[in-house]
Amino acid sequence: MATQVKRHPERGRYDRETIDAILDDGFLCHLGFVVDDQPYVIPTLHARVGDVLYLHGSPASRMLQTLGSGAPVCVTVTHLDGIVLAKSVFNHSVNYRSAVVLGTPRKVEGEEKVRALEAIVEHIAPGRWAEARQPSEKELRTTEVVAIALDEASAKIRTGPPIESPGDAELDVESGVIPIRLVRG
Amino acid sequence: MATQVKRHPERGRYDRETIDAILDDGFLCHLGFVVDDQPYVIPTLHARVGDVLYLHGSPASRMLQTLGSGAPVCVTVTHLDGIVLAKSVFNHSVNYRSAVVLGTPRKVEGEEKVRALEAIVEHIAPGRWAEARQPSEKELRTTEVVAIALDEASAKIRTGPPIESPGDAELDVESGVIPIRLVRG
Repeated sequence: MATQVKRHPERGRYDRETIDAILDDGFLCHLGFVVDDQPYVIPTLHARVGDVLYLHGSPASRMLQTLGSGAPVCVTVTHLDGIVLAKSVFNHSVNYRSAVVLGTPRKVEGEEKVRALEAIVEHIAPGRWAEARQPSEKELRTTEVVAIALDEASAKIRTGPPIESPGDAELDVESGVIPIRLVRG
Repeated sequence: MATQVKRHPERGRYDRETIDAILDDGFLCHLGFVVDDQPYVIPTLHARVGDVLYLHGSPASRMLQTLGSGAPVCVTVTHLDGIVLAKSVFNHSVNYRSAVVLGTPRKVEGEEKVRALEAIVEHIAPGRWAEARQPSEKELRTTEVVAIALDEASAKIRTGPPIESPGDAELDVESGVIPIRLVRG
């Protein structure tokens, strides 16, 4: 990532605390993988346990084959926090937090698989692992879980009010931030 | 897509009306592209105009180089609609709508670029294109917009209550759907 020229380098963050907070603040991620030079991006569910990100998807065969093949993937988690209204259309933006994890998935089996599924279910619906019926051997066999180490991860955050261009401050145009949040229930 | 074996083929939808509704119901998408066999997935903003999806990103140089290179990309838009609580942990799920667009981006210039930026700003914040200051020539030059034809697109939807396994109906476990929605303001 060091060689990348970014338009907004000030938005890049690389400390694990920031990255972990973004990964933990939602259970929907987008998984990117490549088949015959074509990238695919599919939504799936994740949970972080320590230095590992666990994924459990709708295991379409193409995804499963790819995840088990040793090929690199990318997992991105994004939270939309607000709509940034500026005095010029050009300076309109959104406030967001995103974490990007690069890595090669490792198939998870046995006890680690059960704990990973527990983490994913608890991430989506806290308390449900203890309340609902535990998985059978057959159910575990038809579920796929992979792990990605958080060795190569970064975060990007935009927060705060619009940044106006010189000369725009005097314009009679309303500006500010409309907050956005996900609401349950 | 026809050769893909899906776990939940009944969730696949391919009519444009369904796909368009998902693309139009949110302005955050995840763009997947490949550099040196490594997939990247980054959040960006989109708007659909007829049979074309316009993207405008934080134009990191890697993304821009890739988008202009004739390489295929994938754009995915996902809406989380609910948490599906089942009587078994295995049958927990989420309700969602996602649209996946495969294609090769075309760089957009001139009047089409202005109309594409208008569509994106109006998608994020309806009414703002007319209210805020119009883009200058310099601002237009430092903005990149690409178009992807909606020739190869699909949608996947999960909706409704949990699907319980045989024998689980009698279990004394609460089940149902917790709705999720994005709220502005």
